[in-house]
Amino acid sequence: MPINGTTATPVVDVPRGLAGVVVTDTALGDVRGREGFYHYRQYSAVELAQSRSFEDVWHLMIHGELPDAERSAAFARETAALRPLPGEVRAALPAIAAAGSLSGPLAGLRTALSLFGASRGFRPVYDIDADRRREDTLAAAAVVPTMLTALHRLGEGLEPVEPRADLSYAANYLYMLTGSEPDPAHARAVEQYLISTIDHGFNASTFTARVITSTGADVAACLVGAVGALSGPLHGGAPSRALDTLAAIGTPDRIDPWIRERVLAGDRIMGFGHPVYRTEDPRSRMLRGIAEGFGGPLVEFAVEVERHVEAILAELKPGRELHTNVEFYAGVVMELCGLPRTMFTPTFAAARVVGWSANILEQAQDSKIIRPAARYVGVEPPVAVPVVS
Amino acid sequence: MPINGTTATPVVDVPRGLAGVVVTDTALGDVRGREGFYHYRQYSAVELAQSRSFEDVWHLMIHGELPDAERSAAFARETAALRPLPGEVRAALPAIAAAGSLSGPLAGLRTALSLFGASRGFRPVYDIDADRRREDTLAAAAVVPTMLTALHRLGEGLEPVEPRADLSYAANYLYMLTGSEPDPAHARAVEQYLISTIDHGFNASTFTARVITSTGADVAACLVGAVGALSGPLHGGAPSRALDTLAAIGTPDRIDPWIRERVLAGDRIMGFGHPVYRTEDPRSRMLRGIAEGFGGPLVEFAVEVERHVEAILAELKPGRELHTNVEFYAGVVMELCGLPRTMFTPTFAAARVVGWSANILEQAQDSKIIRPAARYVGVEPPVAVPVVS
Repeated sequence: MPINGTTATPVVDVPRGLAGVVVTDTALGDVRGREGFYHYRQYSAVELAQSRSFEDVWHLMIHGELPDAERSAAFARETAALRPLPGEVRAALPAIAAAGSLSGPLAGLRTALSLFGASRGFRPVYDIDADRRREDTLAAAAVVPTMLTALHRLGEGLEPVEPRADLSYAANYLYMLTGSEPDPAHARAVEQYLISTIDHGFNASTFTARVITSTGADVAACLVGAVGALSGPLHGGAPSRALDTLAAIGTPDRIDPWIRERVLAGDRIMGFGHPVYRTEDPRSRMLRGIAEGFGGPLVEFAVEVERHVEAILAELKPGRELHTNVEFYAGVVMELCGLPRTMFTPTFAAARVVGWSANILEQAQDSKIIRPAARYVGVEPPVAVPVVS
Repeated sequence: MPINGTTATPVVDVPRGLAGVVVTDTALGDVRGREGFYHYRQYSAVELAQSRSFEDVWHLMIHGELPDAERSAAFARETAALRPLPGEVRAALPAIAAAGSLSGPLAGLRTALSLFGASRGFRPVYDIDADRRREDTLAAAAVVPTMLTALHRLGEGLEPVEPRADLSYAANYLYMLTGSEPDPAHARAVEQYLISTIDHGFNASTFTARVITSTGADVAACLVGAVGALSGPLHGGAPSRALDTLAAIGTPDRIDPWIRERVLAGDRIMGFGHPVYRTEDPRSRMLRGIAEGFGGPLVEFAVEVERHVEAILAELKPGRELHTNVEFYAGVVMELCGLPRTMFTPTFAAARVVGWSANILEQAQDSKIIRPAARYVGVEPPVAVPVVS
């Protein structure tokens, strides 16, 4: 480690974008890109999605263990009771919805969560104990679906729908979106999508939440930063883009020429490829199974497109692994469950907020600020400041 | 670089909190902790504060060069015209002020800036060109003093004061805060403080802004995250704490026993010590000069306390360097200029927003997401998910 002549801190050179740089230890989970496996704590995330409720996995992430039946019911009641918005936040939503349309739906969530934290009097995480921190994350995460659906409906000229405490997190989300109780199969499919999206390694929004936490800021400050990072196209992406790909191809007879043209031109195909997975994305596999359970022309077409992409790649670029990523079948499943396309990335946020919460709580146990360095490469100072000419 | 068996990315171990880890090259400036020197681009920051206007230094940071006289006047006009708030943001301020008091004044700025970005239709930085990005940062930074002063006045039960375009950034800030045109010496002192606080190495809020930028999010998302990081007590601190130290000591005869007791107990003395500077903090030196220009009992007492701390340390802990940091005399100067103590950290934000802006613009020229890693240290998965008992 060379010592920079100008500062007191040793300078450490690392890969661009901090790729592979270990910021912290975590007990929350990991992604095994080569194995096509990811986990929350010691459990396979896909297995959790297949066998547990969203609330149970939320409990696992926040409390460190899966609840038994009694505790499961109690936690579901506890979080359901937190769904209604405080009056002052509800009153501000029309103005937030009116302002937010051009910057996308996450901009409204960013504002509403920021206001919520202030209205609840959230205090710096280093000034409160672990129980209070956990309560703050539960309160903030519980209102995210309420905010998102209210902002969506206001944007459509509709009245928000009040949350119901007798529905699951996922079912209540769909209920608040549409105003009618959802088909249980749709609610369960969305629930499985939400569980599978709670966390996924040390992504940019999770890292943002942890950097802000490391300054001791309040839970709302951490979550609002994370929402901002998720709103970036390189991170939150757009599960609806994969549907755009399907729409652009149009009919089964056009699949082959359309894909060949893209592959030969070296163009990116939306819904395919992942920076970490070298095998099939386990989320994609699970979501394809859910989609196939529903069946229908969209699903058949999607499966056909996937098959063609893999076959054409095997022919034209042998050895290159390219599989569907989470966006591809997530888009299909959300479309089948009646979610409007503008709500695809917000729905992602309604799950990831639990992952951010767990990361904030874990980071708050550390007391070291995350503060890296930059290398100055400009003109060597000091140059005398010119007098105004 | 060992390859982690479970992921495709090499794992790089670095110091805790990423201390000294170089995230990026920058042409914006640097801090030379051993020399007690920091600079913005190629100029000494202190020299800039002593000889230029806040707007000129803002121009330097955003456009890369100091303006000549004509350009200086044009840029001052351009940014002054951006000070009024859009109607929908102004209309939301009473609700934001009412919600925000318990979480501190930066929580209100966080919400207001988030709403402002949405109301202006800010779009992802990777979807717009460099000119539009710069315009977005100018628009957002120009309204920060308007928001802060309006939120403060609303919190005090007063009507906000509309900005005036004929005053400098600093003078208009004091004018909007109090409703009367400030003493030019106070306006210039605050201006010098603001200039000296625009940027300071790769601090946690600046880093937060750059991580969010690296996802391609819009300028408001980046700034709101930075405001959140600055609100953390380990980062934004509290320049008013140094005044609390002076108040706790009380009278000159109590300085010696009070300091001795703290030093012998190993307690931290607020307003003293800095993680980077090994010499006097150059900001502190400049601000002491400004304070001494005003004179009076508070300044004399502060200088006396500083002298005693250094003398007692030299006696009790020889070889240990401990100097006043920026908080110490910043608090004194802001107090002398009539700023209420709750506005000390917000005033810091009104300067630092320019540094964040420059960092967002620089980061947006890169296209690589900042996405580090964590090491999983929990129970080895997969453990079978228990059935609900």
